[in-house]
Amino acid sequence: MKVLDSHHRLSIFKPLICLIHEDLVVSNEEQNVLDAYFNTQSWMTEDEKKALRHILDPSPQFQDDLSKLKSEIRSQLVKNNFKHDAGIIDIGSELVREHKSDDWYLTAVDNQHLLGFLNYEAVFHFYPEWRETQSLKLDTYASFDIKTLQSILDGEHAGLIRELKGLFEHNIFDFKNREDTTAFRHEIYQACAFLAVKGYGAISYPKPYGGGNDMDFYFTAMETITMVDLSLAIKFGVQFGLFAGSVLNLGTKKHHDQYLGSIGLLDLPGCFAMTETGHGSNVKGIQTTAHYIHQTRTFIINTPDMDAQKEYIGNAALHGWLATVFAKLVIDNVDYGVAAFMVPIRNIEGQVCKGVTIEDSGNKMGLNGVDNGNIKFDHVSVPYDALLDRFVSIDENGNFQSPIQSENKRFFTMLGTLVGGRIGVPRSALTASKIGLTTTIRYSNIRRQFGPASGQEVPILNYRMHQRRLLPLLAKTYALHFALRYVTARYVHHEQSEAQELEAIAAGIKAYATWHNTSTLQECRECCGGKGFLSENRIDDLKNDSDVYTTFEGDNTVLMQLVAKSRLTGFKQSFYHIGITGYLKYFASQAYSSVRQKNPIAVRNTDEDHLLDPDFHLSAFKYREQDILTSAAKRLKRLLDDGMDSFDAFNVCQHHLIEAAEAYVERIVLEQFFNSISMVKDTACRAVLIQLYNMYALFTIEAHKDWYLESEYMAPSKTKAIRKLVNQLCWNIRKEAVPLVDAFGIPEKWLGVIGRK
Amino acid sequence: MKVLDSHHRLSIFKPLICLIHEDLVVSNEEQNVLDAYFNTQSWMTEDEKKALRHILDPSPQFQDDLSKLKSEIRSQLVKNNFKHDAGIIDIGSELVREHKSDDWYLTAVDNQHLLGFLNYEAVFHFYPEWRETQSLKLDTYASFDIKTLQSILDGEHAGLIRELKGLFEHNIFDFKNREDTTAFRHEIYQACAFLAVKGYGAISYPKPYGGGNDMDFYFTAMETITMVDLSLAIKFGVQFGLFAGSVLNLGTKKHHDQYLGSIGLLDLPGCFAMTETGHGSNVKGIQTTAHYIHQTRTFIINTPDMDAQKEYIGNAALHGWLATVFAKLVIDNVDYGVAAFMVPIRNIEGQVCKGVTIEDSGNKMGLNGVDNGNIKFDHVSVPYDALLDRFVSIDENGNFQSPIQSENKRFFTMLGTLVGGRIGVPRSALTASKIGLTTTIRYSNIRRQFGPASGQEVPILNYRMHQRRLLPLLAKTYALHFALRYVTARYVHHEQSEAQELEAIAAGIKAYATWHNTSTLQECRECCGGKGFLSENRIDDLKNDSDVYTTFEGDNTVLMQLVAKSRLTGFKQSFYHIGITGYLKYFASQAYSSVRQKNPIAVRNTDEDHLLDPDFHLSAFKYREQDILTSAAKRLKRLLDDGMDSFDAFNVCQHHLIEAAEAYVERIVLEQFFNSISMVKDTACRAVLIQLYNMYALFTIEAHKDWYLESEYMAPSKTKAIRKLVNQLCWNIRKEAVPLVDAFGIPEKWLGVIGRK
Repeated sequence: MKVLDSHHRLSIFKPLICLIHEDLVVSNEEQNVLDAYFNTQSWMTEDEKKALRHILDPSPQFQDDLSKLKSEIRSQLVKNNFKHDAGIIDIGSELVREHKSDDWYLTAVDNQHLLGFLNYEAVFHFYPEWRETQSLKLDTYASFDIKTLQSILDGEHAGLIRELKGLFEHNIFDFKNREDTTAFRHEIYQACAFLAVKGYGAISYPKPYGGGNDMDFYFTAMETITMVDLSLAIKFGVQFGLFAGSVLNLGTKKHHDQYLGSIGLLDLPGCFAMTETGHGSNVKGIQTTAHYIHQTRTFIINTPDMDAQKEYIGNAALHGWLATVFAKLVIDNVDYGVAAFMVPIRNIEGQVCKGVTIEDSGNKMGLNGVDNGNIKFDHVSVPYDALLDRFVSIDENGNFQSPIQSENKRFFTMLGTLVGGRIGVPRSALTASKIGLTTTIRYSNIRRQFGPASGQEVPILNYRMHQRRLLPLLAKTYALHFALRYVTARYVHHEQSEAQELEAIAAGIKAYATWHNTSTLQECRECCGGKGFLSENRIDDLKNDSDVYTTFEGDNTVLMQLVAKSRLTGFKQSFYHIGITGYLKYFASQAYSSVRQKNPIAVRNTDEDHLLDPDFHLSAFKYREQDILTSAAKRLKRLLDDGMDSFDAFNVCQHHLIEAAEAYVERIVLEQFFNSISMVKDTACRAVLIQLYNMYALFTIEAHKDWYLESEYMAPSKTKAIRKLVNQLCWNIRKEAVPLVDAFGIPEKWLGVIGRK
Repeated sequence: MKVLDSHHRLSIFKPLICLIHEDLVVSNEEQNVLDAYFNTQSWMTEDEKKALRHILDPSPQFQDDLSKLKSEIRSQLVKNNFKHDAGIIDIGSELVREHKSDDWYLTAVDNQHLLGFLNYEAVFHFYPEWRETQSLKLDTYASFDIKTLQSILDGEHAGLIRELKGLFEHNIFDFKNREDTTAFRHEIYQACAFLAVKGYGAISYPKPYGGGNDMDFYFTAMETITMVDLSLAIKFGVQFGLFAGSVLNLGTKKHHDQYLGSIGLLDLPGCFAMTETGHGSNVKGIQTTAHYIHQTRTFIINTPDMDAQKEYIGNAALHGWLATVFAKLVIDNVDYGVAAFMVPIRNIEGQVCKGVTIEDSGNKMGLNGVDNGNIKFDHVSVPYDALLDRFVSIDENGNFQSPIQSENKRFFTMLGTLVGGRIGVPRSALTASKIGLTTTIRYSNIRRQFGPASGQEVPILNYRMHQRRLLPLLAKTYALHFALRYVTARYVHHEQSEAQELEAIAAGIKAYATWHNTSTLQECRECCGGKGFLSENRIDDLKNDSDVYTTFEGDNTVLMQLVAKSRLTGFKQSFYHIGITGYLKYFASQAYSSVRQKNPIAVRNTDEDHLLDPDFHLSAFKYREQDILTSAAKRLKRLLDDGMDSFDAFNVCQHHLIEAAEAYVERIVLEQFFNSISMVKDTACRAVLIQLYNMYALFTIEAHKDWYLESEYMAPSKTKAIRKLVNQLCWNIRKEAVPLVDAFGIPEKWLGVIGRK
C-alpha cells in the first residue's frame, strides 16, 4: 500500500478501504453512498483523489497488503482502548492523530454519518472478539434438578420404567436388520417373547392370571418400549393389548382360563381381526359372516368378497396362530350384528389352516417389524366355544341371548371395552416426539452455523426461527404428557356412567397427540438439516413408524367428528352412534344458547400480568370451545330447519365440528397441565413447568388468533402482544431446553447419534 | 308382534317402535322425549299403555318380528305414494287409515312434532332408496378436454416429456430392489447410464458438446424422471446437473473439451463436493484447503479436521471417479477464498485413490438409490489443470488472477452459476406432489365410507373435510406448475442485471414449493388411511425421498431469509452476502415508506363479485407483501437505532423476514398463475383453471387471515365470507378433481396401486 504512504492524510481512510476490499461487494448503490461522502471531502488534492480512486480499484494482489493494514489498525485500536461504537472514520483518525485539530480532519470525521449507521459496528471488523451479541451469549443452564423433574414425569410407575430401561440393555434389543423385513420381523418377535417371559405380557391382567390388574401398567410399558422401537411397541400392543384385550373383555371365564396364560407368554400369538378392506373407520359395516349351525353347535366363518377380507392385521402374515375375528352373527338367516370369534389361522407347525388364506401386506412406510397381513375365510367351521360370549351368546335351544338388547348399544359397548388402544397409541406417539425433540434440541444446542461477521458461529438453537419451530412443540409435549397421564388414570378407574365421556376424551386426545407427533417429527427432521435425513439419527424411523398413528385405532378426522357429535349431545348418546332423534333433543333444548360474554376490557388488555394469568388462558380456551360448539349447533339447526338432509347438514359443518372437537381437547389439556403443575412440590421444577404452561397456553391462543380476531374476542393489539410474549418465552425456554429434554430420560442409545452426549 | 295385533290402534306407533328397536340406543334423554310425547296420548287405555311398555322393552328375539314389520310398512309406503317429508306418526297413520277422522288419531298425529324434527327423515329408514343427499349425488365429470389441458401443462417441451415416458416403458426402469440398498444403487446407476447413452445426460450442454444448449431441457428431464423414481432424478441431477454444471460453469474450454463428453455419457461419474460437516448452509465457511505449490504447479488438497470433511456427497460412496472439490485456495499463506478443483477419488478399477478416504453415509430416510458419502483428503496432490479456472487462475509467475476482484463477489458469482438446482429441485418436488395427489384423489373418488343411515356409502372425496384437505393443495400445485415454468424461462434466458433477482426468486420458490410438497404428501398419506401406509401405493417413497428437498440446495429457512434480505435491498446487493453498509442505505432511503392505503370500503366488501375479482386478489397479496417488508425494515431500523447489534437485530426479526419472503413468493406465484391462464386459448381449460386460480388466491388469503385481520385490511365479515367461498370452491372443484389430476399425465404404472385406473 505504498500509494497511501506517500499520501499520509489518506490514512484516515485506511479502515474504510480495508472494509470495502475485504467485506464488500461494492454495488452501484453503495458506490453512490461512498461518492456522497467523498464529495464532502473538498480538502483532497487532485493527487489524493487520484490515489484514492486507484486504491478503490485494486488489483487482486491487494489481498497481501490488506492483512498488513489490518494488523496496523488492530494494534492502533488496542493501544487507544477504543470505544466499540466508534465509526469507521473515527478508527482511521487514530492513524493520523497528529492532525486532529486540522480542518480536513474534522470534515472527514464529521461527515462519516453519511456512510450509514452500521458504520458503527466497523470496529468489530478489526476486533471481532470485542463483539458481544446476545445471539452468541445465550447459553444452556438448568434452574432445576433434572432427576427431580424426570421423577415427576415418570410418576407412580417410575419403578416399572426403570426396570424396563434396565432390561433394554440386553442385546436382544439391538436390532441389526431393520432393512431386511424378514429378519427384522424375527428380531421383533424374539424381543417381544423376551418381554413376555419376563412377565410384561401379562402385566395388565387380572391378578389370578398373573397380572397387576392395572391397565396403567400396560400403557406405561407400551410407552417405554417405544423408546427401543415402534415396531416392538406395536407388536407388543397387538398381542398383549388388542388380542389379549379382546379375550379378556369380550370373552368369559372359560376363555380366560384357556387362553390368557399362553397369550401373556406369547406361547399363543394372535391377531385382532376387525378392520376389513371395505370397512375401516366404519367398522359397523363389516361383511364377514358367522353362520350358526345349531345342529353341530358350530359357526361357519366366511369372507363373502374381497372387500370383506380382514386387512392390515398385525401378527397375521407370519406369527399368529389364532385370530379374534369380528363377524356378523347370523342365526336362521337373521343378522344379530357383530360378534367376536376365536378362529385358528395356523396350526402348531405354522401352516395356514384349511379354508384360511393369508396374504402378506408387504412393505409398509414403517413398522416393518410387524407382520401385517390380509386374512380371508372360506367357510371355516369353529366350535361354539369360539364365540367370545360376554355380550353375545346362544342358548341351548339355539336362541340368541344378550345382556344388552339393542344391537347398536351392544356393538358399541363391545367396542368401548377395546378403547385402550386410543390411550396406548398417543402415549407411544408422545414418546416418539420426545426422542425426536431430545435429539434435535441437543444437536441444535451444539450445531453452529453463521454468526456475526468475522465472529464466532452461533448455535442454531439461538436463532429465533429455530426456537419458534421447536420450543412450542416442546411445551406441547410436556402438556400432553400430563394430559395423557390424566386420561389414563380416569380411563383405568372409570365408572360406567363416564364411559361415553371417556371415549370422547380418549378419541380426541389420540387425534390431537398423534397429529402433534407427526408435525413435531417433521420439524425435527428439517431442523436437523442433512443430519436429520440420515438413518443413524433415527428421525426417519420415528417418523415412518408413527405416521400411521393418525390412522390407527380410528382415523383422526373421523374420531374428531365423533368427539364433536358426542359433545353436541352432552355425552348423553353412545359415542359411536347417534340415533335419529339423538341430536334433536339437543338442539331443541338449546343447552348451549348462553355463551359466556366477552369482557370488553379484556379484549384490549395487553398487560403482561393479564396475558400470563391462568384465568385469562382458561377463559379464552373455554370461550372458544363453547362458542364454536354453539355456533356449530345453531348452524346445523338452521340447515335442518331449511330442509337440508341431515347427512348433508353434518357434511356442510364437518370442518366446524372438527374445530369444536379440537377446542374441547385443548381446553382439557390446558386444564390438566395446570392441575398437574399445581401438585408439583419442588419449587424449581414447578417454576420451569409454569414457563412451559404459559408457552402452551399462549402459543395455542396464537395459533388460533385468526379465530379470536374474527370473533372479536381479542383486538389486534392483544394478539400482537401475545406474539411478542411467545417470542420472549421462546428465548427464555431456550436456555433450559436441553435440561428439559434431558428430563424425558430417554437412554442415550435410543437417541439419534447427533443427540447423544 | 302379536301384542300389537290385539291392540289395533297401537299400529300407528309401529314405525316408531321399529325405529327405536332397529336404530336407536335409547338414552335417558331420548326416553324423556318419548315420554313427553306419550303423555299427550291420553286416549290410550291402561291395557294399551301396558302393551306399549312391553313392546318398548323387547327380548332379543324381537329382531325376528321387526323385519316383518318393516316389510309391512314399506309396502304401505309404496302403495300410498308417500311424501318424503312425512313424520314417523304420519307413516304409522297409514296403517290405521280407517281411523283418520277419530280424535285419538288426530291427537297422535298432531303431537308428533314433540319427537323432534329429524323425525321427518324417518321415512328413509324404511325406504333408504328414496333418500337423496347432495353428499351422495356429487359425482365426477370433466367440463374440459383432459388431453388439451395436459398439453397446456406440458408446454413447449411436450415432445421431450412424451419421448421420456416412452423410454420409461423399458424394464430397466422397473426397480425390483428398493429394500436392498446395494442392489438398488446398482439399478439406479444402470438406469442413469441408459438415459445417458440415449443422449439425455448431455441434454442441456452447449451444441458443440452434443446438447441443445437449453437448460430448460434439463429441468424438464429431471421433472419427468421424477415420475419413475426420485433417487433416479437425484442421481441424474448430481451427475448431469451439479457435477457437469460445475465443469461447464466454473471450468474453461480445456475442461469442457476433456470432460463434458464422458460426463454426459456417465463414462466419467463424478461428485459435487461442496458441503462440509461443519458448513452446510454457511457454505462460505468451508475449511478444506488447496495449497498452491508454484514449483510443481500443483495444488495440495487437504481436509484439516472432521468438520471439514465433505459430507452427504452424491456419487461418492460407490460410483464417483472424480469430484469437483470446493476448497480455499492458498498461495504463499494468503487465502484467496473458495475455488473449485477436479480431484480424482477413484481409479479406473474403482479403488479409492491414495490420500482419499471415503465413508458411506449409510442408510437414509430416502433416496437410497443414491450413494451418498463423506470424503476426506489427506494432502492429495493435483496438477494445475485441476483448477476450474473461469473465475480463478494463477499466472505463470504464481500470482493469483481473477476477472472479479472482490473475493466475496467472486464466490457468490461462482455460486450463482450453480443456482439451477434451485429450479430442478422444486420441479422435481412438484412432480412428487402430482403423483401423490393423483393417487389420493382418484382413490378418494371411489373409496366409500359411511353414508346416510341405511343408505349407500359416500365417496370420501364428497366429505367437506376431505375436500378441504386436498383441493386447495391441488390448486396450489397447479399454481406452482405455471410459476415454476415462468421462473425456469426467466432463469434460462436471464441477463446479468437480473441475476440477483432471479437468485432470490429461485431460492424463494424452491423453499415454497418443497414445503408445499412435504405437506401435500403428508395429507395424501393420511387421506388414504391404511392404504396410504402400504408401500405399494408409493406415498411412503415419495414422502421419504422428497423430504430432504427442504434441506437440499440450501435449507428453506435460510433461503427465505436471504430472499427477504435481498428484498430489503431491492435486489441491489449480492444475493448471498450483504455487506456492512448494505442495508443502511436502504433504510436511510426509506424506499418503502409509502405503503399502499387500505380501501375502507373494500375492508368490509363481501360481495362474491369482489371476492372473485383478480384485482382484489392481487391488491391483497401486494398489500401484505409490501406491508410486511416495510414493517420489518422499520423494526430493524428501530432496533439498530436503539443500539442493538445488527446480528441480534436480524435475529429478532427472523420470523418477520421469513414472512416477508413468503409473501413475496406468493405474490409472484399468483401473478404468474394468472398471466399463464390469460394465455390459454381453450375456453373450457381456461374456465377450470380460473376456478383453481380463485381457489389458490382465496385459500392463500384465508391461510393468512390472522394477518389480514390483525392489520385490519379485512373485517371479520369479509374473512368469514372468504371461508364460505373457499368451501364452495372445494365443492365445485371436487367435481372435476379426477380429470384435473388426470391432466398431470402421470403414467399409470408410476401411480400408487389404489390410484390406477
